[in-house]
Amino acid sequence: MRMRKKKNADKRMLACADYKIENPADYKGKWKKEIAGGKDLYLEIGCGKGTFITELAKRHPENFYVAIEVVPDVIMLAMEKAKSQNLPNVKFVCFDANDICDVFENNELDGLYLNFSDPWPKTRHHKRRLTYIAFLEKYKTVIKNGGNIFFKTDNRPLFDFSLTQFMEAKIPLSQVCTDLHTSMWENGNIHTEYEDNFSAKGFTINRLVGTITK
Amino acid sequence: MRMRKKKNADKRMLACADYKIENPADYKGKWKKEIAGGKDLYLEIGCGKGTFITELAKRHPENFYVAIEVVPDVIMLAMEKAKSQNLPNVKFVCFDANDICDVFENNELDGLYLNFSDPWPKTRHHKRRLTYIAFLEKYKTVIKNGGNIFFKTDNRPLFDFSLTQFMEAKIPLSQVCTDLHTSMWENGNIHTEYEDNFSAKGFTINRLVGTITK
Repeated sequence: MRMRKKKNADKRMLACADYKIENPADYKGKWKKEIAGGKDLYLEIGCGKGTFITELAKRHPENFYVAIEVVPDVIMLAMEKAKSQNLPNVKFVCFDANDICDVFENNELDGLYLNFSDPWPKTRHHKRRLTYIAFLEKYKTVIKNGGNIFFKTDNRPLFDFSLTQFMEAKIPLSQVCTDLHTSMWENGNIHTEYEDNFSAKGFTINRLVGTITK
Repeated sequence: MRMRKKKNADKRMLACADYKIENPADYKGKWKKEIAGGKDLYLEIGCGKGTFITELAKRHPENFYVAIEVVPDVIMLAMEKAKSQNLPNVKFVCFDANDICDVFENNELDGLYLNFSDPWPKTRHHKRRLTYIAFLEKYKTVIKNGGNIFFKTDNRPLFDFSLTQFMEAKIPLSQVCTDLHTSMWENGNIHTEYEDNFSAKGFTINRLVGTITK
């Protein structure tokens, strides 16, 4: 996500620093005990301004959420959102999703959210897409058996690509649709800001749920 | 399905003639009342020797099943199977699936089964595949809102093609997997003879469920 440079960024970042985990790899194998207070642990990769993950955390105090965002000014907005609501069950981290197996132990995650990931439209960039099979194989390692990957995107080519990748990775799918907002699965769907913007422009939202089976 | 010419075919066909509906288009709009005794009505396109549909009818006496098969000697075997079990809730018909809208009224079907349909592997034959979008659009007409299309195949290219067609037709999917027999959805799955043969040869069974939404 590109955005204007924030004023007083250092000061603001400091004010919400409690919401950030600076060395996430230190907690590999210890997330549930040391961070999540024994709760089920869910990850969002690419949380943007955090609208989705903070709302999810608010609705599900019984779970714990960790969200990755790599753009510093953006993660700051997400952390400020969590802080303003005093949410006790969400933390933010900044690392490359390629390194997910260095940060989480096998089966350590109960589920994963991918919302409006970068489509990387050029064919030669397909390995960067967060639903490329090499990523899916890593998610299979860190997510427990029976855990879900929740994926939504307004980008139809990315969605079609993702379908093929989940099938290649032998991850069964449910709730596959090209128009989430008019589907039977809209109930309980938390809209991101991006989702509402694109939906208002007439794009439909594609969505699928993959279930890890080991 | 190709098979040896059956001996005494005429005589045998006559003996199970009660299981055949000769002029299916005559019942358009009247299937539930005049044939199914008010029960929910499900169709199988391409029932082969009828192992699947007779087992399904036996397990679900609360429903009524109609099965299409276009090869006369094959449909005879299916009808003999139904007759030998004295099944009261299944009938067989012989017509081109292209004509489905001439045989069933809008919303007249509660669901549809497609098992191991001909893959028509040549690209120029893709419009003959029973999951080609033009077929799906017809199924959308005759199946009620919320009704399901249950599709399974050992043929992966047909499966991948079908995924794209269901998405094009905006039919949401559930239970999408490339290895049904090891999946969480195997429970309750009725194996066809073809399915067991191909599974024994090491092929996995691909499966999806599409839900009609109007």
